[in-house]
Amino acid sequence: MIDELRSDGELVSAMAAVRSAAGDLEALARVAWSVVAEPGDGVAGALVQALGASEALRVALDDGVGPVPGRGRAELAEGRARWRVRAEVRAVAAAVRAAGDVQARLLIPGDPEWPHAVDDLGAHAPMVLWVRGDASLLSAAPRVAIVGARAASGYGEMLAGDFAGELAASGAVIVSGGAYGIDGAAHRAALGVEGRTIAFLAGGVDRAYPQGHRQLLQRIVATGAVVSEVPCGTAPTKWRFLARNRLIAALADATVVVEAGWRSGSLNTAGHAAALGRPLGAVPGPVTSAASAGCHRLLREYDARCVTTSEEIRELWGISGYVEGSAQEGPGVDPERRRLRDALGVRTPSTVTELARRSGLAPTRVSALLGLLELEGDARRADGGWLSGHSDRR
Amino acid sequence: MIDELRSDGELVSAMAAVRSAAGDLEALARVAWSVVAEPGDGVAGALVQALGASEALRVALDDGVGPVPGRGRAELAEGRARWRVRAEVRAVAAAVRAAGDVQARLLIPGDPEWPHAVDDLGAHAPMVLWVRGDASLLSAAPRVAIVGARAASGYGEMLAGDFAGELAASGAVIVSGGAYGIDGAAHRAALGVEGRTIAFLAGGVDRAYPQGHRQLLQRIVATGAVVSEVPCGTAPTKWRFLARNRLIAALADATVVVEAGWRSGSLNTAGHAAALGRPLGAVPGPVTSAASAGCHRLLREYDARCVTTSEEIRELWGISGYVEGSAQEGPGVDPERRRLRDALGVRTPSTVTELARRSGLAPTRVSALLGLLELEGDARRADGGWLSGHSDRR
Repeated sequence: MIDELRSDGELVSAMAAVRSAAGDLEALARVAWSVVAEPGDGVAGALVQALGASEALRVALDDGVGPVPGRGRAELAEGRARWRVRAEVRAVAAAVRAAGDVQARLLIPGDPEWPHAVDDLGAHAPMVLWVRGDASLLSAAPRVAIVGARAASGYGEMLAGDFAGELAASGAVIVSGGAYGIDGAAHRAALGVEGRTIAFLAGGVDRAYPQGHRQLLQRIVATGAVVSEVPCGTAPTKWRFLARNRLIAALADATVVVEAGWRSGSLNTAGHAAALGRPLGAVPGPVTSAASAGCHRLLREYDARCVTTSEEIRELWGISGYVEGSAQEGPGVDPERRRLRDALGVRTPSTVTELARRSGLAPTRVSALLGLLELEGDARRADGGWLSGHSDRR
Repeated sequence: MIDELRSDGELVSAMAAVRSAAGDLEALARVAWSVVAEPGDGVAGALVQALGASEALRVALDDGVGPVPGRGRAELAEGRARWRVRAEVRAVAAAVRAAGDVQARLLIPGDPEWPHAVDDLGAHAPMVLWVRGDASLLSAAPRVAIVGARAASGYGEMLAGDFAGELAASGAVIVSGGAYGIDGAAHRAALGVEGRTIAFLAGGVDRAYPQGHRQLLQRIVATGAVVSEVPCGTAPTKWRFLARNRLIAALADATVVVEAGWRSGSLNTAGHAAALGRPLGAVPGPVTSAASAGCHRLLREYDARCVTTSEEIRELWGISGYVEGSAQEGPGVDPERRRLRDALGVRTPSTVTELARRSGLAPTRVSALLGLLELEGDARRADGGWLSGHSDRR
């Protein structure tokens, strides 16, 4: 197939429109792979990793291939059977032409804008990325995924907007999936503060999905980036939504789920983030809200971190030098001072001995602490003893 | 002092009223310790552990004491200084008389009803427990602490009531602190289902605190238990509230914080539970609610488990044989079936080859999976191919 592709003049000229450099063989082969294999096809990925895309394509459609590291002969035979039914030059050409029509750019590994973060997916890394808008955003830092349910509540959309707006205003790139609900609120808030945002689509970048977000996606193309790994013309399917989720999780430095139902697809994104070792945050909500049930599940089962402010989200990727809080701080500190403060009256002065008896502290300790409390305004001298520094001793 | 105590006839007869057995020297000495030392005094605790209560009392008020394991001479000298100012026989006698007046019973380690759980506090274990009501509840299982803010919201009180009512109805003993807000809602719900509940007070069991809970506390005495480690007549102070919290945490098999402000005393209870290795749950709420800020802090900083139902609370102490959920279950399972279901049309039948192309699966795999999907009602045969088993393929 690779020879047919390179000799198709129309295809080669179409490639020039989606690549800044002259169309090279590797790019052409990767586009072909993105057409013949579904997103995340690990056998295809392993083959391309081992042989390079064009050589992999050559042997994939040919029975004579030898062993590929980590992959059995049966797996390759099955892969070949599923790739062959899609191996058509005209499908590749159509994908490239459609991309050119919407000014999408083709990125492959090795390109300056290729985001190394997605390489962590290993054999499941994308073959290519199609980008409409500013491809440099894919490698801009920090990138935070703000995702969640389409069936979001007002509470969830408000928080998604607050968090995305605050994070985008401080320079973070907001990554999301372009869907209704949480995703849309996050993208819109980023645009609203003239911040940067990336929408990862499950279908081709030439398709506005959902239709109701056509204008929103156009705005994202204008100042941010709309990205997909599947060729233009490809319809989003449930499988592709799930596959797309792994790209959001891999690209982002941290993923935050704002609202999600018990079986929401956002849990799938979260699962990928956790599996990749990316920090994962979940926003709690009322336990009476079904739209927060998935977030609570993330806290319970995925070891997600509970995040309630944009500052806490920032801590996920360590921007603010967060130090894990000490559990016993606050009410438990300095018990002796607490006891002595408890013992001081507001009207009737007490002697040191009385204070010692009341607080259970030694008289010498009471005397020493009274000096400290006096300095801090918590105790004051009075006729014949000591009073609380405050009119209400509680 | 111990000799004065044992020779005080009125005190000895008062002791008979609070002990089922005849007053023994150890019980008398422990009451004296609870009068001279503040709750949780670790030096007093170590001394009593090493020497027994009566011998410890003898040497504590005498300069001739030798070394005590794990405690320095300076610590003992400081302890002696603070205990001496309180060492009065009449204070001990007053405490015992006041307990007898309200039919409180005195428990000390070794008594059948003494709850072994509090011994986990080591040198900080209570010297005695004063109990009004059913002392056997202290050792009944399971015991769950439902605690939280006095300044609770309607959301928090509703959940505290729901959880405590459901757990009490299924036999759990609800432990709480008798305060307004969450504590009160938990106690009331337990009483409402004729369940069992224990209120731990920071002051003496003869004092209704808060005053507004006088009736509630009387109802708890009637069917449950009101408990304190401090002598009757002792006022609750901030320090004693904090000290009391360690008893709630130690007694309960699990502690759940329903609502808590950022600096709530409930975080102190939670800190004790965590320090003791007791399971700790926190109920999430809206991030916009200050009354849930402490719960979210517990999730973030104390590694508390997120709990949203009484069943999830039960899982804290392992009643229901809970198995940690698998993170990838749900949306991620069985990707090939998912892809094939995506590929099936609702109106136009597709051939196996068409389905293979659309789904990216090998034709042989498509054929095999179609058989499975047909059995499950997700696919059906039609003229010239296959259709989705559902009228809406999404």
